[in-house]
Amino acid sequence: MTSPTTSSLPAPRPAPRTDADLGRLLIQCQDGPGIVSAVSGFLSRAGANIVDLAQHSTAPEGGRFFQRTEFRLPGLSAAREELERTFAAEVAAPFGMEFVVTEAAKPKRVAILVSKTDHCVLDLLWRNRRGQLDMNVVMVVSNHPDLADEIRPFGVPYVHVPATRDNRAEAEQRQLDLLRGNVDLVVLARYMQIITPTFLAGVGCPLINIHHSFLPAFIGAAPYQKAKERGVKLVGATAHYVTEDLDEGPIIEQDVVRVDHRHSTPDLARLGADVERAVLSRAVRWHLEDRVARNGGSTVVF
Amino acid sequence: MTSPTTSSLPAPRPAPRTDADLGRLLIQCQDGPGIVSAVSGFLSRAGANIVDLAQHSTAPEGGRFFQRTEFRLPGLSAAREELERTFAAEVAAPFGMEFVVTEAAKPKRVAILVSKTDHCVLDLLWRNRRGQLDMNVVMVVSNHPDLADEIRPFGVPYVHVPATRDNRAEAEQRQLDLLRGNVDLVVLARYMQIITPTFLAGVGCPLINIHHSFLPAFIGAAPYQKAKERGVKLVGATAHYVTEDLDEGPIIEQDVVRVDHRHSTPDLARLGADVERAVLSRAVRWHLEDRVARNGGSTVVF
Amino acid sequence: MTSPTTSSLPAPRPAPRTDADLGRLLIQCQDGPGIVSAVSGFLSRAGANIVDLAQHSTAPEGGRFFQRTEFRLPGLSAAREELERTFAAEVAAPFGMEFVVTEAAKPKRVAILVSKTDHCVLDLLWRNRRGQLDMNVVMVVSNHPDLADEIRPFGVPYVHVPATRDNRAEAEQRQLDLLRGNVDLVVLARYMQIITPTFLAGVGCPLINIHHSFLPAFIGAAPYQKAKERGVKLVGATAHYVTEDLDEGPIIEQDVVRVDHRHSTPDLARLGADVERAVLSRAVRWHLEDRVARNGGSTVVF
Amino acid sequence: MTSPTTSSLPAPRPAPRTDADLGRLLIQCQDGPGIVSAVSGFLSRAGANIVDLAQHSTAPEGGRFFQRTEFRLPGLSAAREELERTFAAEVAAPFGMEFVVTEAAKPKRVAILVSKTDHCVLDLLWRNRRGQLDMNVVMVVSNHPDLADEIRPFGVPYVHVPATRDNRAEAEQRQLDLLRGNVDLVVLARYMQIITPTFLAGVGCPLINIHHSFLPAFIGAAPYQKAKERGVKLVGATAHYVTEDLDEGPIIEQDVVRVDHRHSTPDLARLGADVERAVLSRAVRWHLEDRVARNGGSTVVF
Repeated sequence: MTSPTTSSLPAPRPAPRTDADLGRLLIQCQDGPGIVSAVSGFLSRAGANIVDLAQHSTAPEGGRFFQRTEFRLPGLSAAREELERTFAAEVAAPFGMEFVVTEAAKPKRVAILVSKTDHCVLDLLWRNRRGQLDMNVVMVVSNHPDLADEIRPFGVPYVHVPATRDNRAEAEQRQLDLLRGNVDLVVLARYMQIITPTFLAGVGCPLINIHHSFLPAFIGAAPYQKAKERGVKLVGATAHYVTEDLDEGPIIEQDVVRVDHRHSTPDLARLGADVERAVLSRAVRWHLEDRVARNGGSTVVF
Repeated sequence: MTSPTTSSLPAPRPAPRTDADLGRLLIQCQDGPGIVSAVSGFLSRAGANIVDLAQHSTAPEGGRFFQRTEFRLPGLSAAREELERTFAAEVAAPFGMEFVVTEAAKPKRVAILVSKTDHCVLDLLWRNRRGQLDMNVVMVVSNHPDLADEIRPFGVPYVHVPATRDNRAEAEQRQLDLLRGNVDLVVLARYMQIITPTFLAGVGCPLINIHHSFLPAFIGAAPYQKAKERGVKLVGATAHYVTEDLDEGPIIEQDVVRVDHRHSTPDLARLGADVERAVLSRAVRWHLEDRVARNGGSTVVF
Repeated sequence: MTSPTTSSLPAPRPAPRTDADLGRLLIQCQDGPGIVSAVSGFLSRAGANIVDLAQHSTAPEGGRFFQRTEFRLPGLSAAREELERTFAAEVAAPFGMEFVVTEAAKPKRVAILVSKTDHCVLDLLWRNRRGQLDMNVVMVVSNHPDLADEIRPFGVPYVHVPATRDNRAEAEQRQLDLLRGNVDLVVLARYMQIITPTFLAGVGCPLINIHHSFLPAFIGAAPYQKAKERGVKLVGATAHYVTEDLDEGPIIEQDVVRVDHRHSTPDLARLGADVERAVLSRAVRWHLEDRVARNGGSTVVF
Repeated sequence: MTSPTTSSLPAPRPAPRTDADLGRLLIQCQDGPGIVSAVSGFLSRAGANIVDLAQHSTAPEGGRFFQRTEFRLPGLSAAREELERTFAAEVAAPFGMEFVVTEAAKPKRVAILVSKTDHCVLDLLWRNRRGQLDMNVVMVVSNHPDLADEIRPFGVPYVHVPATRDNRAEAEQRQLDLLRGNVDLVVLARYMQIITPTFLAGVGCPLINIHHSFLPAFIGAAPYQKAKERGVKLVGATAHYVTEDLDEGPIIEQDVVRVDHRHSTPDLARLGADVERAVLSRAVRWHLEDRVARNGGSTVVF
């Protein structure tokens, strides 16, 4: 039975799709002559009209080449498999190219992992409802029950998976059972548990994390307290892909806010939270729009 | 005779050019299928390697299309005329395209017009000396003699053209005699004289202006005083191309700085000056690198 | 009967009050010697300990003087009337001073007026729930029914007062009946109706409004479209007290966000909304903490 | 003989002093009741008019108290010693207060230490000439000869003290001979030599340093390269007092600028330089105006 609470608000509504024919082609390969021409020639012959193109090479000579192309192809959904097969043979193979084709009309399936604080997850859900984040939030998973009543009015399932020191492996397995194959992206929205290599290997999709950041970094526990003790004038946040190096993955987005001596340590944390939600929402948006290419430990954000 | 002052500092030195083969192609036309493919195919056949490409369409359907392409073509300087002729015939004509080809190794010739304040012109000259603004500053022209001793150590001629209410037409003619045919860009670096339609029509190259900006605008005399009286929290600056609509031309760059009630009106002007020099230097840099396309009353800044 | 929806979330919870003895004294008067000494001497003799003091004079000579003092006085609530009477006689009268004493432990009663867009009101309510905005939101009033289901889960009454061209005076009267005597502050959180002089005179408390802002201003209808056509690089927002001059009242806070040619007009509006909610929340917070003094058409924000 | 170069520009001109009677009193002590009242009462009795007052306590209870007071006292220069003696006895002693009195009309004597890059030192000298930094730059000291021709036109002595691995102690001694007793502040404007404890102990005045900063920090050599490899989106700078902990002293000011994947490592360094000069100039300005109080490893910036 649907509870009155969850039915009282409209379901997440993506921005209206007037055009099911919008596709995105992301490629990367060793840089060299003729790539743009080969890709755009292929799309042209396939009947696709390029509506946006951005490219980047990491060095003037011998760099790595990245390109994001938005195109409109009538009947994309039906034609996509054939398009991929032909592109692989005619363009990707000769250039040693990695590529992916996505359809703008098919929103990514997203799970959000949270602990007890609500600022990041609420901003994501609110932007989704407002049509600013085109994703299908299939579940919010938490190691705490606290946020259930705040999340469910958005029409999203809230799954409580208790995680303690004693049941970590078991809890992780329950999370993997929930996520694997069901989601295209996991967002850690102030999720205060370690992500293990087992989890990373098993989940089968990218993870985006948000954490506080300062100039310089204050490592370890109580970072806001340490920042306060040095008299920092800026507190910030970093959104990044999760890798095995904790908090060291490729950076997607960062921002800061100005503070001064009148701000207490809790004030720093409060202002930091504002930056965190803004930075995470932007990073997630860009990922959903296939704007972020990973380049080793770095990113290209088109 | 060269004065000791002007010889005591090195002449403006542009960033070292290791590659005389770097060219830029800027195009604009009615959007439609096949443009990117046609341009990149042409460059590929001409032996040019695309090193950077950015494009923009003003609307999903029926918009105007803009593209900036950086390419490397061995022997560009010798081949350029032929390249332009062939491109005009094979690509530009069929698509009804406007285009221009520039060589990165040939810095633009720039005149800077100033009145009495030095912050903008000094920042431009310092960045030029440091190799950050790749231009050839052929003269600084002023309606006042005040800044001669600050400008000449940079090795740039300082020309004083007195302009009064009585001799405006004559002074304007002297300026046009100095500038016409000699410069590719005129920068108004806090030049406090009206630019007449006659001057605009006669000078034969783009002009970039900088002026203070607020939210909202405070029109007319004493804008900082008016801003102070409303308690504005931000003061800013706008760099734009000059058109016949005074201070209303296409915007290239803007920025702001935060102020509060403790700042006096002179403080606002001082902080505004810092923003002005930063904004103007960025706008000039982007123009010099052929990154700014004019789109009616607006701009595309690649 | 309370609906399940409204009971499913905790009621707005202000930050915990550990100290009922915290008071604030705001004064303003003609500047002159001895004011700080007189005020601090008075508080000292009254047994109050100054915990924060900020002051400002609008000019080195002959300016207007503003001071905000936070103090701790055991038994403040009981002692306040006597304190005010004595201060009026001993300090305020000799210096021709306006003053007000507030108790930090008594949150202001606030009504939020909205139309159809939710970004500003949700941010205010969420910050209130999180303990970041210490106010008692007694009602949300709207000329549309749309936001009822989003507002009520916060435990705040949502009152729909339909306002049409035909019933404007009547609707205004209904609003005044709801507000007058019941609130200490009215926040216009994207309320798209004219505020009449009658309403202003009748409501009996300050009003804070938020609106979009640009450099320069784009006046009249479709401002984002006009901004897009000029190629603006920043869009912003201004929070201000409402006066009879529409959108021209004393500015409390402003901020901007950077945009470029790739942003469509709806993108500008979306990013502008982010700035609006941030700016409005800051302005309301500062008002609630008695940090904003009005100085003619300007403000002092301590 | 003065060279034509150095005479060709006006000597540094501080902002005009219309009021020799402007003094500043900085105090710090254990927080407790009655301090503001005692200080302001003392100044009032001494015939001084408070024109600006800011105070800060590090904690609601038992914190450390800081206050900066600007006052106008006719005949300040002659009365200052007596004022200090009386204040020490009547106010400072009972409250266990540290204090200092300065005269706004007496600019601080400043030495600037540089190596080979000019962006920070030129900005300081230009702001000084323009009247924005009220200091007396008595010398620029460098371990390299490179910047002599850029510095001397400002009318400031440029002293070259070669420093190599072999003569470090001797070079340090020469620097101390130049500085000790002659300056009130040393600014390290991209000075790329280690500051030894011996130097710190011997120089007898505060030192302000500027260095690049990132979120997170990139420690050791080639920080911009490391930042590039992580894909940072912000590069920044920190100005701080120098202590024995290298680059770890109390922070005075910080700022950042946004970058993206299109910026090369040299671009990051160039943009970082812009932030460095802005941050250093602000930090020096605030120090010159006696706005910065040191609080252990942190600062209070009034």
